[in-house]
Amino acid sequence: MKTSTVTATALAAAMLQSACAQDLDLAPIELKAPDLARSESLMQAFAKRASSLSVEDKMLSLQDLSDLLWAGNGVNRPEEKKRTAPSAVNAQDVDIYVFLAEGAYLYDAFGNVLKPVAKGDFRDAVIAPSRMNAGTPPVLLMLVCDVSRFTMIKDEATRVRLAAMDAGIVSQNIALFCAGTGMATRPRASNNAEKLKEVLKLSDTQIPMLNHPVGYEKAADAK
Amino acid sequence: MKTSTVTATALAAAMLQSACAQDLDLAPIELKAPDLARSESLMQAFAKRASSLSVEDKMLSLQDLSDLLWAGNGVNRPEEKKRTAPSAVNAQDVDIYVFLAEGAYLYDAFGNVLKPVAKGDFRDAVIAPSRMNAGTPPVLLMLVCDVSRFTMIKDEATRVRLAAMDAGIVSQNIALFCAGTGMATRPRASNNAEKLKEVLKLSDTQIPMLNHPVGYEKAADAK
Repeated sequence: MKTSTVTATALAAAMLQSACAQDLDLAPIELKAPDLARSESLMQAFAKRASSLSVEDKMLSLQDLSDLLWAGNGVNRPEEKKRTAPSAVNAQDVDIYVFLAEGAYLYDAFGNVLKPVAKGDFRDAVIAPSRMNAGTPPVLLMLVCDVSRFTMIKDEATRVRLAAMDAGIVSQNIALFCAGTGMATRPRASNNAEKLKEVLKLSDTQIPMLNHPVGYEKAADAK
Repeated sequence: MKTSTVTATALAAAMLQSACAQDLDLAPIELKAPDLARSESLMQAFAKRASSLSVEDKMLSLQDLSDLLWAGNGVNRPEEKKRTAPSAVNAQDVDIYVFLAEGAYLYDAFGNVLKPVAKGDFRDAVIAPSRMNAGTPPVLLMLVCDVSRFTMIKDEATRVRLAAMDAGIVSQNIALFCAGTGMATRPRASNNAEKLKEVLKLSDTQIPMLNHPVGYEKAADAK
């Protein structure tokens, strides 16, 4: 009896989720496999690493967006379900939400797809328009940590500290990929948390931790 | 009057520090300039990133140790006094302490030198001998955050959260450098904080946040 109840509930939830996704009228974005043959140098990425918001007003190519997300927190060992970014007790607590002009998406690393979350331009929930004087970045990555995934750790302060470390780790994956490939970014700890919570329908255990505006480095700034 | 007092105090402190360093009977280690011509691939570093403690019982070459530390939190823009790792409000709050068999050192990124802190093998303050079943790593990097450098931020929880993010950032610089260059490492959040505080003479605002055992990847494990 209990099994069938759970199954029915799960089915109802899946149907609801499917219906909501349709209501969004925003299609998923299938990402490309990471291009592991890219030739950029690791040491040059460290040498060029710098914080900048000065980006071209031009969308990233699908390959560059795919590689950026994979570098950030993608699956590099599918057979072990493991990622480019380590996490405390392998909680894999960091989700990357992707804000584009047309909507907000959740990066599903295992499916290698961007799942629609909200239709519309919500980039101002991540970075205030007054801070966008260098131009609106075409891509905003919002790192959200779900501390409920630290199932064995109950202390709230410890959870937040571990989540902050894990977000820093993903953040630097993003920063180094950008530095190495001619993109500009910077980690930012401020955001409009109330609006983000509403737009992304975050639970109380999901903390918007760090964000990264990303775009191609402005030609005049390229070194 | 105030200026001369400060100068005299600073001079006394410098003399004291110099005297202590002599007492240690442990010489500084001059590091090499980073080898920016290293040819390792950025994408392969992301592909190979994995946590491992399985290392050869062999000291790193001075060039590899130098490059590792520079990648971790070195100075990549000397004219701006800026680093391979960003930090919240540019507080540069993360110090790397380096534990070798002969002693513990502080990585002075601007001087590109390891400054002696304590003579002797204190690696067991960073990683318990019971956790060293894969062999004792020749190098242990301890990331210590000094939250007093967040001068404009007074809230303790915010300071710790930002420091944890900053440590995560440095941690991933280390992990990616290792992944790309045939070294093994893993980030660890546990340590013997009491002993570390004593050995390193840490102040109350210095938090041992994350550590990285590092060594050459065991041949059998190399992929």
